[in-house]
Amino acid sequence: MSILVMKFGGTSVANLDRIARAAKRVAVEVANGHKVIVIVSAMSGKTNELVGWVNETSPLYDAREYDAVVSSGENVTAGLMAMRLQEMDVAARSWQGWQVPLKTNDAHSSARIEEIPPENILAKFDEGMSVAVVAGFQGVSPEGRITTLGRGGSDTTAVAFAAAFNAVRCDIYTDVDGVYTTDPRICDKARKLDRIAFEEMLELASLGAKVLQTRSVELAMRYKVKLRVLSSFEEQSDEAGTLVCDEEDIMESNVVAGVAYSRDEAKMTLISVADRPGIAAAIFGPLSEAGVNVDMIVQNISEDGRTDMTFSCPTDQVARADEAMQKAQDAGDISYQELVSDKDVAKVSVVGIGMRSHAGVAAKMFDALSSEGVNIKVITTSEIKISVLIDRKYMELAVQALHDCFELEKAA
Amino acid sequence: MSILVMKFGGTSVANLDRIARAAKRVAVEVANGHKVIVIVSAMSGKTNELVGWVNETSPLYDAREYDAVVSSGENVTAGLMAMRLQEMDVAARSWQGWQVPLKTNDAHSSARIEEIPPENILAKFDEGMSVAVVAGFQGVSPEGRITTLGRGGSDTTAVAFAAAFNAVRCDIYTDVDGVYTTDPRICDKARKLDRIAFEEMLELASLGAKVLQTRSVELAMRYKVKLRVLSSFEEQSDEAGTLVCDEEDIMESNVVAGVAYSRDEAKMTLISVADRPGIAAAIFGPLSEAGVNVDMIVQNISEDGRTDMTFSCPTDQVARADEAMQKAQDAGDISYQELVSDKDVAKVSVVGIGMRSHAGVAAKMFDALSSEGVNIKVITTSEIKISVLIDRKYMELAVQALHDCFELEKAA
Repeated sequence: MSILVMKFGGTSVANLDRIARAAKRVAVEVANGHKVIVIVSAMSGKTNELVGWVNETSPLYDAREYDAVVSSGENVTAGLMAMRLQEMDVAARSWQGWQVPLKTNDAHSSARIEEIPPENILAKFDEGMSVAVVAGFQGVSPEGRITTLGRGGSDTTAVAFAAAFNAVRCDIYTDVDGVYTTDPRICDKARKLDRIAFEEMLELASLGAKVLQTRSVELAMRYKVKLRVLSSFEEQSDEAGTLVCDEEDIMESNVVAGVAYSRDEAKMTLISVADRPGIAAAIFGPLSEAGVNVDMIVQNISEDGRTDMTFSCPTDQVARADEAMQKAQDAGDISYQELVSDKDVAKVSVVGIGMRSHAGVAAKMFDALSSEGVNIKVITTSEIKISVLIDRKYMELAVQALHDCFELEKAA
Repeated sequence: MSILVMKFGGTSVANLDRIARAAKRVAVEVANGHKVIVIVSAMSGKTNELVGWVNETSPLYDAREYDAVVSSGENVTAGLMAMRLQEMDVAARSWQGWQVPLKTNDAHSSARIEEIPPENILAKFDEGMSVAVVAGFQGVSPEGRITTLGRGGSDTTAVAFAAAFNAVRCDIYTDVDGVYTTDPRICDKARKLDRIAFEEMLELASLGAKVLQTRSVELAMRYKVKLRVLSSFEEQSDEAGTLVCDEEDIMESNVVAGVAYSRDEAKMTLISVADRPGIAAAIFGPLSEAGVNVDMIVQNISEDGRTDMTFSCPTDQVARADEAMQKAQDAGDISYQELVSDKDVAKVSVVGIGMRSHAGVAAKMFDALSSEGVNIKVITTSEIKISVLIDRKYMELAVQALHDCFELEKAA
């Protein structure tokens, strides 16, 4: 049995016409010989309406009731999609999370998937059903209450089903036609990638490319689910969109796969910190406890027992970081002269699995930025990525310069 | 444990303000020492929106998918109501039909309730929960799919819970403040009844008084559930509204409890039917098979082996009745000269359990109509009701005359 998972996001099922269009796409895959599991989001706008009601009713809401209310949007789409398919003579039925059942833990509003027993749906496939339409984003807790999976939950649902059912592929239908070498709104030479490795996608996703939720890519990587991103608004061939896959499935690739950016970064510097063994823990422990997501860290050379410590975090966590450092100073855990924050920065990164085997990528990157007069404030690197913090006003220029210097407009 | 069931219809939970108002009413009953089971409808308009989408997607829809889609409105209200109660420091949680579980048969879109095991909710009451907010109108089939109960399903849900939990009472909050001796829009002397017997309510409900669904009254009668109808838009005392109860709980009552009417009636006469044993079966068998709900029947005295047969049915079933009779004539099962239909008629009825022990009610009724010059076309009677078919233009006059002649403006 060849099972295909297809996921349609909110804009792809925004109204009855779009649901009908998505159903046609599903019917094509059934005609191609697949049994199909369709994962649907709520019609766009519906979840926001429900969340609005919840917030107005109870600002400090019970997450269990939040989940019971907010999950209803996906149930509506699932039923409508199943009916639409039946109208086209495709044997389909809808499944709510608890009916599958998609079992989660009891962390309401951000639940983790624990198990998807495939028996119920497989039994229906055996009886002749062609399509199972599953309400995304939701599951059922051990206590039998409805849970939701948090942001990007429908992508995660789709990948989890693909893993549980050993699907040939998981197609994510969205409002863009694939993953690009960088954001086409910033760089008009941006090129759609035919394939990208999980690790690269993960770096791009967490660096601000909004196509796929990080969690769904992690899950796909762990279970080796072939993930394809493609547009629900265009006619599709088998080679459309971008395939996110194991790096072994990519024959040729550029050293650098893409350039990512994030505007939502702030640079903070603790000036003249009293240096001693354990000082990093004394600084970053309290920050972590205060819920500050520290990204990059740079420590200057120590002089006369004092040093400067620079780190970056999301812009909206600056106040929280400030407060945590003040508290640590008051408690005598650390001693510093001043905490300087700079919100006018941006992060630009180059990502590529080819960097593992190619030296000189960093040098080439710094050269390109330098020849455009862009000053680098902080640098971090991992095995497959180099990120720099720069003044925000240079962000677009830097992205274009890096795209050019690594010749990303050309396929490998 | 004193359990009270409270049901709020669509207009009583139409928006967040009204949900908050209903929640306050629930909190009062909790303060009075009750454990409360609240049954909620969808916010008014929501179910119609969902039904509209279903009809547009699939005119001949799969009733199982219809149920999955349409039931979502009640789930939203249940969650919001539970949150609102929590905000008022009342320990509450929501329950969807399958969570209770409210078990039904698999007659989707008009399912019958089979069982409501009280264990799950009672266990939560024992743990300190004060209010179970239950999504009305829905249940779960033996196969584990969502069912809905059809028209008036939330009233039926409420009564079924009251029976299953041995509730002290079932309060139906609606947009009228009780059951009246007749429709106040037609007769300004109409008086709200403090109490009415189940049998009387049943006749009034099926005769066109729209306050309670017939099915819920039948269920209340069978399980002796004390049913109270009252307004969600007024301050309430313990004696507000109308109590629908066993006749033994009504000390004093008028011979006639109320006057009902129905505009939606047509009178049909088969002229010159060949009379023979079994002719009634030959006529009303095919009508029943064609889905015609025949109400009143009159057969004239036979003359020369032929007779006229008159019956009434809802106006929108006239064409269907015509077709069924034509077919029976063509098949040689019956023989008649002509089928005459009259849509300009109305049915007016007086209802009262006191009629069992009081003679002369019919005579008094016919007198009152006669002295207003109202001609009676057809008469039917049961133990506690007398109905007449009259020209529609006299309907209001007849209702007022009967209300006066039985002095219904005065309490017993």
